[in-house]
Amino acid sequence: MKKIKVGIIGYGNLGKAIEEIVVSKNEFELVAIFSRRSGLNSKFNSHFEFTKNLENYVNKIDVLFLSVGSFSDIEVLSKEVVKNFNFVDSFDTHKKLKNYVLSLDVLAKNNNKVVLSAFGWDPGLMSMLRTLFDGVLDKEGQSISFWGKGVSQGHSDAIRRISGVKNAIQYTVPKKEILAKCKKLYNYNFTENEKHDRVCFVALKEDAKEKEVENSIRTMPNYFLGYNTKVNFVDELEVRKMQKKMSHKGYIISNYKILDKYKTRLEFKLELESNPFFTASVMVVGAKIVDRLVRENKFGAYTILDIPVKYFCNEDRDKLLETKL
Amino acid sequence: MKKIKVGIIGYGNLGKAIEEIVVSKNEFELVAIFSRRSGLNSKFNSHFEFTKNLENYVNKIDVLFLSVGSFSDIEVLSKEVVKNFNFVDSFDTHKKLKNYVLSLDVLAKNNNKVVLSAFGWDPGLMSMLRTLFDGVLDKEGQSISFWGKGVSQGHSDAIRRISGVKNAIQYTVPKKEILAKCKKLYNYNFTENEKHDRVCFVALKEDAKEKEVENSIRTMPNYFLGYNTKVNFVDELEVRKMQKKMSHKGYIISNYKILDKYKTRLEFKLELESNPFFTASVMVVGAKIVDRLVRENKFGAYTILDIPVKYFCNEDRDKLLETKL
Repeated sequence: MKKIKVGIIGYGNLGKAIEEIVVSKNEFELVAIFSRRSGLNSKFNSHFEFTKNLENYVNKIDVLFLSVGSFSDIEVLSKEVVKNFNFVDSFDTHKKLKNYVLSLDVLAKNNNKVVLSAFGWDPGLMSMLRTLFDGVLDKEGQSISFWGKGVSQGHSDAIRRISGVKNAIQYTVPKKEILAKCKKLYNYNFTENEKHDRVCFVALKEDAKEKEVENSIRTMPNYFLGYNTKVNFVDELEVRKMQKKMSHKGYIISNYKILDKYKTRLEFKLELESNPFFTASVMVVGAKIVDRLVRENKFGAYTILDIPVKYFCNEDRDKLLETKL
Repeated sequence: MKKIKVGIIGYGNLGKAIEEIVVSKNEFELVAIFSRRSGLNSKFNSHFEFTKNLENYVNKIDVLFLSVGSFSDIEVLSKEVVKNFNFVDSFDTHKKLKNYVLSLDVLAKNNNKVVLSAFGWDPGLMSMLRTLFDGVLDKEGQSISFWGKGVSQGHSDAIRRISGVKNAIQYTVPKKEILAKCKKLYNYNFTENEKHDRVCFVALKEDAKEKEVENSIRTMPNYFLGYNTKVNFVDELEVRKMQKKMSHKGYIISNYKILDKYKTRLEFKLELESNPFFTASVMVVGAKIVDRLVRENKFGAYTILDIPVKYFCNEDRDKLLETKL
């Protein structure tokens, strides 16, 4: 079987996890890892390139992984990349996703490319389950999602970009009493803020002011504004220690009474020892889906809501009808 | 908006549940209920027809619900029905499903019809989740499913067709110690028989012999053969009492270590006060999907593995990208 030639843009926790998974699988050939940073090296002897040299790899890579931070890079970068490459990303700024996907769709179609976007666990798996639960119960927006306790890479990344911040980590923590209530209730309308706390641990640079940094965090739109945010200042060693543990959890519950009579409960739960390695696993499956959509000439920008589950498996449909139905 | 004109074939528990849900929703018009039995009536003043008169309704019904028992009727009936009608069914004989779907696919395409098959909760939702879990974890057949405690309509129906049986009910009961083990293990290979007991309560006709009926149950292929089956003989009043409670449960667990290192757990749980009303709810969503596929000229026979989750919701894709991702 022909190997899928892949490249990785961005070499943080996520990029490194993708690298390790891809090199462990026979079906892939890792052509290069692209970064703006110099002097990178890898225990897998991967080949590194500057991101600006990406165009030298046109026609040499089947699918790219975009594993740069959602905070700013990805929106600009993706519009360039799609001109020459198919790619999968796990862009996770929920509020921006619709416009991101719709604008990439036009570019992907114009360039005969396939994009699979927001393809991780949330957005991703959890988005799929919310849609499925609300769909089969024929009600809108009633499935309720909880995240954590766990580190949000996106939010941690966002804090680290604030001037004066040396290092930071952000925990998303569900409020236990609200979660317990949601298991019992048939009507709920909690805001994100009511369901979760956002707990930040921040190490400052020498000349930085706590008040200013705290204010920058609290007022950051899409990330912290409107949330119940706790900011703790600690030394960098403590942040580094916390960064070694990257577990996370996700939970969706949907209670419904069919015809106002018959109690029905659907639940989905996910427990991860490593958030980046699970996101990477999902994206690696995504790369296979992208490769398949390219072979089927189905150009455009997709999300997990557009992909039937038969595309997630290596087995052909006949085999799945036999083993999975 | 144009209403979807529907008909129901079969008026058992499932057919009655579909009727009640359909008449409660503005988007449907229930044209007729088809049965081989005469003298039926409904509190919703539905129109009844003999199934043999189905051809009088060609072009008068957009989507039919096939809610006859899986045991024998549906395989013969479906091949006739697909010549003139689009339909959704919840055919649940797992071992026969592949051939059922593939042969209907040919007929559906030849007749410009859409069939959505095995579209309930298992086969159905649970099939989708098994495929998704195995797919994202990139392993084959490791997700493990449990059913119950709950009544299996298909198995109860199968017992009732044995000569000498007046009435019967069958409970599927997961073995607690195996379920507990599966939550902890990362490798398991339990057979259905090891995971569940099948507990039957049977009321006999006057001249029937317990030994013969018990033997007919135990040796029934696809249903009881190879399973740990317990047969209890009781009087019919007791069976009728049990038949009033139709709750059921489903559970899927998938443990996996990414790269043999990072523990990952995915779980899906479903708790139903009414098995037939939930199956009916899913099938009603299925009828909307069938109607949409017809409008898109996508003729053929589908299963839940082929349908992207965006098709499950009433909202258009743009709205879903905004609210569900």
